[in-house]
Amino acid sequence: MKKINVGIIGAGRIGKLHAENISAFPNVSVKTVSDLYADRLISWAEQFGISQITTDYQDILDDPEIDAVLVCAPTSLHSEIIFNAIEAKKHIFCEKPITFDLEESEKIYNRIVSANVKFQVGFNRRFDHSFSQVQKAVRKGEVGDLHLIKITSRDPAPPPASYIETSGGMFIDMSIHDFDLARYLSGSEVEEVTVTGANLIDPVFKKYGDIDTAVITLRFANGAIGVIDNSRKAAYGYDQRIEVLGSEGMVMADNVLNSTVRKSLSTQTQLDNPKYFFLERYKEAYIVELKAFFNAIIDDTDTLCSVKDGLEAERIAHAAKKALQTGEKVLMKDLTVIQ
Amino acid sequence: MKKINVGIIGAGRIGKLHAENISAFPNVSVKTVSDLYADRLISWAEQFGISQITTDYQDILDDPEIDAVLVCAPTSLHSEIIFNAIEAKKHIFCEKPITFDLEESEKIYNRIVSANVKFQVGFNRRFDHSFSQVQKAVRKGEVGDLHLIKITSRDPAPPPASYIETSGGMFIDMSIHDFDLARYLSGSEVEEVTVTGANLIDPVFKKYGDIDTAVITLRFANGAIGVIDNSRKAAYGYDQRIEVLGSEGMVMADNVLNSTVRKSLSTQTQLDNPKYFFLERYKEAYIVELKAFFNAIIDDTDTLCSVKDGLEAERIAHAAKKALQTGEKVLMKDLTVIQ
Amino acid sequence: MKKINVGIIGAGRIGKLHAENISAFPNVSVKTVSDLYADRLISWAEQFGISQITTDYQDILDDPEIDAVLVCAPTSLHSEIIFNAIEAKKHIFCEKPITFDLEESEKIYNRIVSANVKFQVGFNRRFDHSFSQVQKAVRKGEVGDLHLIKITSRDPAPPPASYIETSGGMFIDMSIHDFDLARYLSGSEVEEVTVTGANLIDPVFKKYGDIDTAVITLRFANGAIGVIDNSRKAAYGYDQRIEVLGSEGMVMADNVLNSTVRKSLSTQTQLDNPKYFFLERYKEAYIVELKAFFNAIIDDTDTLCSVKDGLEAERIAHAAKKALQTGEKVLMKDLTVIQ
Amino acid sequence: MKKINVGIIGAGRIGKLHAENISAFPNVSVKTVSDLYADRLISWAEQFGISQITTDYQDILDDPEIDAVLVCAPTSLHSEIIFNAIEAKKHIFCEKPITFDLEESEKIYNRIVSANVKFQVGFNRRFDHSFSQVQKAVRKGEVGDLHLIKITSRDPAPPPASYIETSGGMFIDMSIHDFDLARYLSGSEVEEVTVTGANLIDPVFKKYGDIDTAVITLRFANGAIGVIDNSRKAAYGYDQRIEVLGSEGMVMADNVLNSTVRKSLSTQTQLDNPKYFFLERYKEAYIVELKAFFNAIIDDTDTLCSVKDGLEAERIAHAAKKALQTGEKVLMKDLTVIQ
Repeated sequence: MKKINVGIIGAGRIGKLHAENISAFPNVSVKTVSDLYADRLISWAEQFGISQITTDYQDILDDPEIDAVLVCAPTSLHSEIIFNAIEAKKHIFCEKPITFDLEESEKIYNRIVSANVKFQVGFNRRFDHSFSQVQKAVRKGEVGDLHLIKITSRDPAPPPASYIETSGGMFIDMSIHDFDLARYLSGSEVEEVTVTGANLIDPVFKKYGDIDTAVITLRFANGAIGVIDNSRKAAYGYDQRIEVLGSEGMVMADNVLNSTVRKSLSTQTQLDNPKYFFLERYKEAYIVELKAFFNAIIDDTDTLCSVKDGLEAERIAHAAKKALQTGEKVLMKDLTVIQ
Repeated sequence: MKKINVGIIGAGRIGKLHAENISAFPNVSVKTVSDLYADRLISWAEQFGISQITTDYQDILDDPEIDAVLVCAPTSLHSEIIFNAIEAKKHIFCEKPITFDLEESEKIYNRIVSANVKFQVGFNRRFDHSFSQVQKAVRKGEVGDLHLIKITSRDPAPPPASYIETSGGMFIDMSIHDFDLARYLSGSEVEEVTVTGANLIDPVFKKYGDIDTAVITLRFANGAIGVIDNSRKAAYGYDQRIEVLGSEGMVMADNVLNSTVRKSLSTQTQLDNPKYFFLERYKEAYIVELKAFFNAIIDDTDTLCSVKDGLEAERIAHAAKKALQTGEKVLMKDLTVIQ
Repeated sequence: MKKINVGIIGAGRIGKLHAENISAFPNVSVKTVSDLYADRLISWAEQFGISQITTDYQDILDDPEIDAVLVCAPTSLHSEIIFNAIEAKKHIFCEKPITFDLEESEKIYNRIVSANVKFQVGFNRRFDHSFSQVQKAVRKGEVGDLHLIKITSRDPAPPPASYIETSGGMFIDMSIHDFDLARYLSGSEVEEVTVTGANLIDPVFKKYGDIDTAVITLRFANGAIGVIDNSRKAAYGYDQRIEVLGSEGMVMADNVLNSTVRKSLSTQTQLDNPKYFFLERYKEAYIVELKAFFNAIIDDTDTLCSVKDGLEAERIAHAAKKALQTGEKVLMKDLTVIQ
Repeated sequence: MKKINVGIIGAGRIGKLHAENISAFPNVSVKTVSDLYADRLISWAEQFGISQITTDYQDILDDPEIDAVLVCAPTSLHSEIIFNAIEAKKHIFCEKPITFDLEESEKIYNRIVSANVKFQVGFNRRFDHSFSQVQKAVRKGEVGDLHLIKITSRDPAPPPASYIETSGGMFIDMSIHDFDLARYLSGSEVEEVTVTGANLIDPVFKKYGDIDTAVITLRFANGAIGVIDNSRKAAYGYDQRIEVLGSEGMVMADNVLNSTVRKSLSTQTQLDNPKYFFLERYKEAYIVELKAFFNAIIDDTDTLCSVKDGLEAERIAHAAKKALQTGEKVLMKDLTVIQ
């Protein structure tokens, strides 16, 4: 079996997670990690058998032994890294969003379609065992024609102010996963976006022109209606539920709980809460998405979450932002990028 | 204990249900039932110990022994019956909606506030055991400040075409229950209404200018956001769920299933579906709402679901209709009645 | 439709419940109630339209207008009442157990089989909506050949000492319902009984030679094994669950909860507890069992819970008592009544 | 951090699983694997970075760089391997059961208590996230004094005939896990064992003097009663549930399902079945038990599942066998080993 060598660009929380997951893959190895603070990574890298650390990601791109890169650097650097990686003919796995700027993402899209490298966007939820089963059931027609798609997506607690400031806003930072899921579940493109948003959790969101609570309604090309409810604070944990109603029935996936323990005491019965946040909830999905990426390289097939998927989710995020700002329904065909 | 005599005006499905429920109340009796097709009611009335049947509801209003009337006639007759009942100083329980016409309902509202009779609207869901527990938990602050209110309300199958034609449309016929629940759960008035609606189930809805699927987003005066998803066809049964997210957590009420039976076979585990429709699902709630009405009479207290509650839910229904027709967000303060 | 007149002998908690339930049946009426403390029943009887109260149950048996009697008196009086009722040619619904004494119950059994009256034992759980669905699935072969039958049956709190003293012991008082369910679910007779019992909840049980906690294992003629766990104290409510494992799968019925409300707070998610006790849990079953009894009279069919069913459950209870006392497995064929 | 070198003796399914799990531990490495069929392991070993394979486990014991061994060979070889490993001063992780022979296990027990090596038995279920939470809740007194402990443990399908022949019988092969869980949950020793067993699934069990279905009742020194139901065939998957009833309430752990997907169609709602078998169900537990073993070595603490725990579970298995054969209750204090 072909052995794939990987370079990881950016070793924050998610970059490290991917490296650790890869350490258990028999046919893939992380050869080099680049990070501005490379010196802080020495003992971690040793522990996971990663031999090279660098502050310059170009070292990775220049290494002919490296087949693929994982772009885990801050979003503001994605565009530059991606163009350079394409030049270096490296396959690219890129965390979401591709960029904050729709024109920039479109340029990347156009470059990728003519380049001979694999490109996968880090929409990990597609690779969740339960969500992908829902999608398969929908695609097989088990619920008939699609009528309603509902996504609940709530973080357990707001991120720190420093993160909020540079996050690009809730839609591009958080809801973008739901926009991708909506397309994934419906198998159809979004045509209309309506938003009712609010700042209810912490005034810091408002300070940075952001919101923390929203209901987003979508109309799909196939006629179905989608609705997403987002919150930056669900005190009981990371709330991730999906449901699809069709002419023949409904299929849904509920939260994954911390355990199956149930305590029945005199006044009530207690269950465990949902898994706390994305690292716990999507632990398996992060592994599955990387395996899928490496398999696409090995088998020379299309990735399961393409640059097009990344771009379309971003377009919906920008439409949602415009809908929030104007207070009006936005038709995707009229979408003009907001500066 | 005081014994209350009741007259029921209109003995269709819901009028009969109320009569049958009252037959088990020790301190209330149905003295007279009026219906255009009185002759069809004879054996039914005998079975439930109802001695008088008439085709003219005025017979009920003229009877000094009758304390209260249940208005279960077609909506188009409500206004006339209510004004006459007020004249006759009868307490009034009125099925929803009060009228199809907002000005007419406002007139009734104005008349009731100065009249010395009890008036209760038949929003039965408020009296559901699980829903009222959710409301109490919210009101006690168990989930903190309100952020999101979600209501799922789906009928098992569309009504017949003849019903659709005269129903007043999905919002005033079906969603009105959800609008009332939204106010009940939030304890706040609706300020904005946005609608994404569609005709996906049967073209007959379109024929009568109606829709069959909708997502309705509400913004409340207290800042919370509400979202209702409605469908005229949930193949698996009557889907009635509510959930309230607040700063400290979430409280929800799930569907009531036909049984607690669970079959685990080689390929899957099977549960029973939700109770089929409103008569099964809200069987207890129909009894509780009547008891509450009669208690309000006996104890001379306010009814738990007032003419104001009826009027406000209708106002939201009219706003939703306008939002659907214009494709724009409707501010309740700007609401002009649609003709 | 034939109207059935009923006399109720013994108006304690269960006698009253039956009377109240019958008051809502269109074709049955309670004509007379007999009770030693008849004078305490006057206002109650009036409320439910019962015209005659007596201290002497013979008044009921002598009334030619009365078709059937409900025997709700203390168990120690059952035998005498039943023989007299048979003489008077009344159909008999008898609360469990028929008697405390196996020879006495056998005499009743022998008398009934040759008498021309209906006889139904008050094993209400057979008429529970979920339990009867489980039984039907088993009988239809949905889980294949039977391997294991599990019954969990726990009271929320121990009865008062005065009750314990005259209850006949846990097996004949409480487990007898489970013995009947075991026969009902298995469709087979019990051949062996093994018991591990203990006094863990309150020393008062020991004082009266009784236990409060037990695991009872049964072997059925069809080869299946049954296991019942009983407790006189489940702090969280009345715990009533059944499950049947067969060669093709499992079918079970879980507890019925007080509501479908679910609260998710920062440390845990809370559900409602099971319905508190038998009056809440089997509210519907009490109605269904009476309807079945009256239908057996009207249609002249066998009752669904015969004198044989009552006798067999008692035989298992006596076997369990013997197994507890001897510490050994009891074969039903060797059963000698314990004095 | 100290690095631990491990040798694995026996590379069947479970030996390989442990080796693969260890490959992701940063501070432990599998240096050598011994197996009779070493040549079949070459590519597998390479894939997981295991450099040495041998057919002679003594090579492992002779290697001074190896700190600990995992005994995953057939049970019949355990005793010899364990005594040799103690001689070689290796820490020992031993799959269950320690031996088939109670006297032999007692000898090992006596040898271990005076030896200066760690010894852990592979009772993986203690390390299941949900089960250990139940145990902690019980130990903290959350359900008060213990009354009933219930364990359901059913395999999805019978093992092959060849396995049955040498398995030692259902009690020592399968129920032994439940006997250990019973001690773990109760925190008390078993004093009495009663068994009702049967051969219902496949005559091959009978052929080898074995059974396939059983209900085992235990009485603990603390007064509580335990009940285990075992089956070699649950068509719907691996059924692993526990529940503990105490004076203040109940705590239970339900099955882990394959997904959280729920499909509601016109006739029923479908859930996923429990995870199929032990490799899926206890995937995490296998990792956690090894981590605990290595931590006991690193921190020089007692293992969480000692040789005493292994011995006591075996004693209960032998008592169960005797109870089955004699048809009588067995007192643990009277236990004479069955030949």
